[in-house]
Amino acid sequence: MKRREFLLAAAAVTLRRAPTLRIDGERLNRQLGELKAFGRTPEGGVSRVAYSEADRDGRAYVMELMRQAGLDAHIDVIGNVIGRRAGSDANLPPILMGSHTDSVPHGGNFDGPVGVLGAVEVARTLDEAKLTTRHPLEVVIFQNEENGKTGSRALVGELEQRELDLPSHADKTIGEGIAFIGGDPTRLDEAIRAQGDVAHYLELHIEQGAVLHARSIDIGVVEGIVGIKRFNVVIEGKANHAGTTPMDQRSDALLTAGRFIDEVHEVATRLPGRHVATVGKIEVHPGAPNVVPGRVDLSLEIRDLKMEKIDEIYESIDARAREIAARNRTSVSLEPYYLSRAAPTHENLRRHVEESSDAMGLTHLRMPSGAGHDAQSIARIAPAGMIFIPSIDGISHSPKELSRPGDIEAGANVLLQTLLGTDASNAFG
Amino acid sequence: MKRREFLLAAAAVTLRRAPTLRIDGERLNRQLGELKAFGRTPEGGVSRVAYSEADRDGRAYVMELMRQAGLDAHIDVIGNVIGRRAGSDANLPPILMGSHTDSVPHGGNFDGPVGVLGAVEVARTLDEAKLTTRHPLEVVIFQNEENGKTGSRALVGELEQRELDLPSHADKTIGEGIAFIGGDPTRLDEAIRAQGDVAHYLELHIEQGAVLHARSIDIGVVEGIVGIKRFNVVIEGKANHAGTTPMDQRSDALLTAGRFIDEVHEVATRLPGRHVATVGKIEVHPGAPNVVPGRVDLSLEIRDLKMEKIDEIYESIDARAREIAARNRTSVSLEPYYLSRAAPTHENLRRHVEESSDAMGLTHLRMPSGAGHDAQSIARIAPAGMIFIPSIDGISHSPKELSRPGDIEAGANVLLQTLLGTDASNAFG
Repeated sequence: MKRREFLLAAAAVTLRRAPTLRIDGERLNRQLGELKAFGRTPEGGVSRVAYSEADRDGRAYVMELMRQAGLDAHIDVIGNVIGRRAGSDANLPPILMGSHTDSVPHGGNFDGPVGVLGAVEVARTLDEAKLTTRHPLEVVIFQNEENGKTGSRALVGELEQRELDLPSHADKTIGEGIAFIGGDPTRLDEAIRAQGDVAHYLELHIEQGAVLHARSIDIGVVEGIVGIKRFNVVIEGKANHAGTTPMDQRSDALLTAGRFIDEVHEVATRLPGRHVATVGKIEVHPGAPNVVPGRVDLSLEIRDLKMEKIDEIYESIDARAREIAARNRTSVSLEPYYLSRAAPTHENLRRHVEESSDAMGLTHLRMPSGAGHDAQSIARIAPAGMIFIPSIDGISHSPKELSRPGDIEAGANVLLQTLLGTDASNAFG
Repeated sequence: MKRREFLLAAAAVTLRRAPTLRIDGERLNRQLGELKAFGRTPEGGVSRVAYSEADRDGRAYVMELMRQAGLDAHIDVIGNVIGRRAGSDANLPPILMGSHTDSVPHGGNFDGPVGVLGAVEVARTLDEAKLTTRHPLEVVIFQNEENGKTGSRALVGELEQRELDLPSHADKTIGEGIAFIGGDPTRLDEAIRAQGDVAHYLELHIEQGAVLHARSIDIGVVEGIVGIKRFNVVIEGKANHAGTTPMDQRSDALLTAGRFIDEVHEVATRLPGRHVATVGKIEVHPGAPNVVPGRVDLSLEIRDLKMEKIDEIYESIDARAREIAARNRTSVSLEPYYLSRAAPTHENLRRHVEESSDAMGLTHLRMPSGAGHDAQSIARIAPAGMIFIPSIDGISHSPKELSRPGDIEAGANVLLQTLLGTDASNAFG
């Protein structure tokens, strides 16, 4: 038997042996509870912003769990924590699993930690079962996901030098923060991974929306991270005395804004699909009860899995905006100021997530991820897959953020089985 | 001939003698130009806020003009400037003419001064023509019109004690300001006028709207000062992640606000009449481009000559607001927080303004005053009448505020003829 044939046979053994393998849900949920101690807030959530002491200490706690799981844990020059486990074929690139442990200020304890501790638990389960995958495994804590996906973007060479001087939420610049957590901001290049360096990437995460919870579905099969375009919308009318300016002589910028907001909703709900369009910010000038508004500044954000769909929605809104503005003698302009490209997941990984779920009797649904994730960065260099579990009432970035222990256990088991299935498959080999 | 019969005959003489009497437009416009020096701003307007040195000095300049016009000028305990001229019948109460000389911060030079200097010019014209009216005349500069109509409200006993401690725009309390300009805030009661103390009141003023200018009409015959009701509108939805919350699962408070603003406009334009309804202020929470708005606070203001009409409009808006809010799972509440009662002018005074205009070949239009004026206060104790002249493009409370010299002259002539007509008439005797 040649080496390659031997390995394929070994993989087939793994495939036969592992379908009933399960992670320890009680242990995983207990560890999630223990991680809460780092940055706990009086409201019951966590403020574990990147580069804070709580962030550093929480990562040290997880590194200890990695060692207990038989992983060889270290902090790379980027500041990402990497726990490595050898595969049976040293020639194969590693499969990465991970997420983040930093939080938004006054956030919850599930956004990020579920994916990190879930991956550590998967590794520990393999360790206890004395199972070796074909590919090496790396469990990664990406640093500073919440304020710029710094760790995952640096890993694929997307972090710009100027970003190191930007402030973080922890009274340090990003560069100072990287040094604080054990990285070396002067040597970031050394840790960059290129196409071919990673077999594929798997991330378990809470949904952060209410789709799964509302429909009582166990697993979200993420089709990709949506692209985002944001626009500054400026509506100009003419400020005037509200008492002396008859209704038919007004150029009321806020009236145009009101109709614009309604139209954004109409366009977004009329077109089929799961895109979203949002006006979240509005400012009116001069902004007094007795003055007809002369100018309104507002934000428009459009998200979808396809950038062309975002453009199609934008075009519809833009055309209607001009008509609406002209109707009451106002003008409108839309200026793009932010772009985040959509990052589709790999179809084969989606299928593996579905098959793993089916095998365990878990219901599942294909869905976009409306929020950004580290998977979005890694998708630039390798096939990426994401597994969502339900968020109660869709609440996230809040101390009220909650995912049920049973759902967390189920998600980690889908991660384990997807890992085993994709490790054995040659689809990405 | 009894005394009363003699006076009526004298009045008849006045009526016959005066129709061709005209003010000196060149002099009036020159004096308006000279008043600009007090508080002039680099943009060409004036900041002559009540109780400032510019305010005090501008009033002293006008008192000098009053003396040149044969008026006996003094500052009463309220701080109003009063220039008095005897009538032929000492038993009759005085006819008052006036307005204000204070401005808003960074305002213009026509809002107020046109009425004060116009009235002084009318007195000077009578003086030069050696004409004595039946009633005594008083030309009044009401103090602090722009920040609370303090002088005119105090004259009719409406100023509340607590208001003396409120701040003004001139780094003084209202009470300190009254003392600063020559009044005595401890003796305000001594200057109060009651029903019967004033024959009637006439005020010339710029329109501050664009109705006359847009329609090329010379004179506005003011039907009254509109009543005002203001409401705080609170719309509550649910703040949520804009990426992870599908369109059909949102409780978007700003979407409700947008539809509410549109509906306010629809209701106000659908109902016949010259009422206005305005949303001038809006605040959204949390107010980020990537968060579905959870709460919106906005203002609603409704103005009309009839309070019942204001209530009717409010009821229509309120009913529709509830439907609109429920449509996307939000709630709405409207709380009144400000009320200013409508003050109709006297019908006989309106007719005299129309007749005077007709006699001089001036076009005229009946219209509400959407802005507040000192006439509103005086209407509480005596018949009040108001004469509007065009504001170019309706601009007011701005350095760009402008009324043409010819229109100012025409307005002062209508004031003169209306004074002569109503002085002779017994309609208010």
